[in-house]
Amino acid sequence: MRRFASVALLLAFGSLAGVTPGAAQTGSAPPGVQPDGTVTSPAIAVPYSDLASPEAHALFPRLLAEGAKAPPITAPIARSRAFYDRMNSDRVARMRERYPVVIHPETIAGVPAQVVLPASGVAAANRRRVLINLHGGAFLWGAGSGGLVESIPIANLGRIQVITVDYRQGPEHTFPAASDDVEAVYRALLKHYRPRDIGIYGCSAGGILTAESVARFIHDGVPVPGAIGTFCGSLLDLSGDSSWVAPLLNGQGVPTHRLGFGDLPYFRGADPRDPLVQPGLSPALLAGFPPTLLITGTRDMAMSSEVRSQALLERAGVEAELHVWEGMWHAFFSDPELPESRQAYRTITDFFARHLGHSTRDPGHIAPDRSR
Amino acid sequence: MRRFASVALLLAFGSLAGVTPGAAQTGSAPPGVQPDGTVTSPAIAVPYSDLASPEAHALFPRLLAEGAKAPPITAPIARSRAFYDRMNSDRVARMRERYPVVIHPETIAGVPAQVVLPASGVAAANRRRVLINLHGGAFLWGAGSGGLVESIPIANLGRIQVITVDYRQGPEHTFPAASDDVEAVYRALLKHYRPRDIGIYGCSAGGILTAESVARFIHDGVPVPGAIGTFCGSLLDLSGDSSWVAPLLNGQGVPTHRLGFGDLPYFRGADPRDPLVQPGLSPALLAGFPPTLLITGTRDMAMSSEVRSQALLERAGVEAELHVWEGMWHAFFSDPELPESRQAYRTITDFFARHLGHSTRDPGHIAPDRSR
Repeated sequence: MRRFASVALLLAFGSLAGVTPGAAQTGSAPPGVQPDGTVTSPAIAVPYSDLASPEAHALFPRLLAEGAKAPPITAPIARSRAFYDRMNSDRVARMRERYPVVIHPETIAGVPAQVVLPASGVAAANRRRVLINLHGGAFLWGAGSGGLVESIPIANLGRIQVITVDYRQGPEHTFPAASDDVEAVYRALLKHYRPRDIGIYGCSAGGILTAESVARFIHDGVPVPGAIGTFCGSLLDLSGDSSWVAPLLNGQGVPTHRLGFGDLPYFRGADPRDPLVQPGLSPALLAGFPPTLLITGTRDMAMSSEVRSQALLERAGVEAELHVWEGMWHAFFSDPELPESRQAYRTITDFFARHLGHSTRDPGHIAPDRSR
Repeated sequence: MRRFASVALLLAFGSLAGVTPGAAQTGSAPPGVQPDGTVTSPAIAVPYSDLASPEAHALFPRLLAEGAKAPPITAPIARSRAFYDRMNSDRVARMRERYPVVIHPETIAGVPAQVVLPASGVAAANRRRVLINLHGGAFLWGAGSGGLVESIPIANLGRIQVITVDYRQGPEHTFPAASDDVEAVYRALLKHYRPRDIGIYGCSAGGILTAESVARFIHDGVPVPGAIGTFCGSLLDLSGDSSWVAPLLNGQGVPTHRLGFGDLPYFRGADPRDPLVQPGLSPALLAGFPPTLLITGTRDMAMSSEVRSQALLERAGVEAELHVWEGMWHAFFSDPELPESRQAYRTITDFFARHLGHSTRDPGHIAPDRSR
């Protein structure tokens, strides 16, 4: 009877009624809530998600162990870049085996880039379309191999040209150097493509930069692209529930210092309230955004930023398609072996296939009025 | 330097690298991960989300305190029903003030129901449409006032007729009594409405029952409705990350016993692998589902079930629109004062406005092929 009543309360009442704390909690103080809404708990143990794939379950502890090998925090930036480049180069090799592509380097408007083409050829419907990828890596690393990791499966599965851009990063460069570079590349592409035929997407720093670039285009009076994707990073600084819970779910406990843009060398000296840094702060800017795809996972510290960005975009009247993968961590789709990764690639290619080539004001693509 | 390197690792590497555990952790053992992927942490404190509304922040600790007043777990079912009925009746009064409606009781196919109509009249576009609401309450309570809480804002804002159904519940009745009742009401409505003009939605037990009912219609060869909404409960049993984390984020700690359908008296004797209980287990059934709206929050124990249901529906080729509200708990939109609640109501009414009245096989509404 006790068990049933507990579940009844949970179901009916939002987990807001008294449930006996778990056996996994070995501390002495019982769980509770403080007057300011802070919740507390004694020591805990949380199993890996039983709704994720077996492949993800197997990879999760291995990834945590691999992460523990990252250079010490005092290491020079070159050493950190080399570490992540090795990891990403290994992923590129695994990607290319599954998703054959042709890659050639190019310089566009003075910015280094790589053009990734499907080995099977670009689909007829995509001949006049192009995707720009902005890689992740904390605005510190990820140039080259990191961009390929994000571009190869999309180019292959979507049968579309992807250009991954090596924008300037910290600590050598600061905001808005990366936005400058993206705008330069975008303007160069506008000589050959209609805005509606261009898509931009990225993960982590690349998701943040995608949103910042669109804000910058609007600010500069440049027509926005047909659609964008902000993954594992979106229109707001890292904040909300996931900024505390994701580290916990990745075996690091709740952080003392909640990390944010202000901790990144790239944003040194930038005003965190500047909507070209956090476009989510400006409803007027958001109203000019194109349809936006948002991707995250239940163990991604950017989840809250992503879901809040969806709400803000919709309030501004913009179509915002959200996908949250169960048990998945930050940038989970960097590893191509997960079924979840493959589904994410398809979600991305389907989204751009549906949205590119239409005017963003095409009747079939106007978002419902949510300006309330 | 230390701070910056930590955030760099977090951003670049999925929170998967070594971050120093927080000051909030007072236990002795450091956080970590076990070989099976279980993560551990000493005692923790997690603040309320800084991305939710001030209204939600104020309500959160008050709701937890209110929940603590729920009848003891040994109380007779009548006392629990009276407790939740008082709470829901109070909400109904607040709802009616904001969202004027006309309500009249009706019996449809022998099943008690209430018809909720907007005081300003049904919109011209909705004259031939109807929504069925299936209330929450753990398949134990919520009849009457609970159904009105979920129906009033939708009828008023959507300017559409909503019929809330008092289906049979536990402990007096067991599965599939509720599915029987919903099918009886639905068949009666089919005498007056086209399937594509009927929508079904519900929260918690009602979200689960919405999915079970559609599975049942498909099983029985009855045409499916035009669109459905499964909120705070979906196509799968409670499981995944949120089944552990949501209780933690609601001040209850990680539960010893993870609650599920098997704990509910309504499912006594039911086979948990039966796809009429968990439609998410059957790709064949899912392929017949209509466009589905999924709503949850980052503090809802059903979040993982919702996000996994989206992935399963999409894999079956069904349009599945997901909305996750930051900092929101199970059934948050039962309280009409939150800005988040109002946005959820608009999300629901917009979704049905877009999807009802079309054939689910209408070219404009065919989901992209994701059957991979």
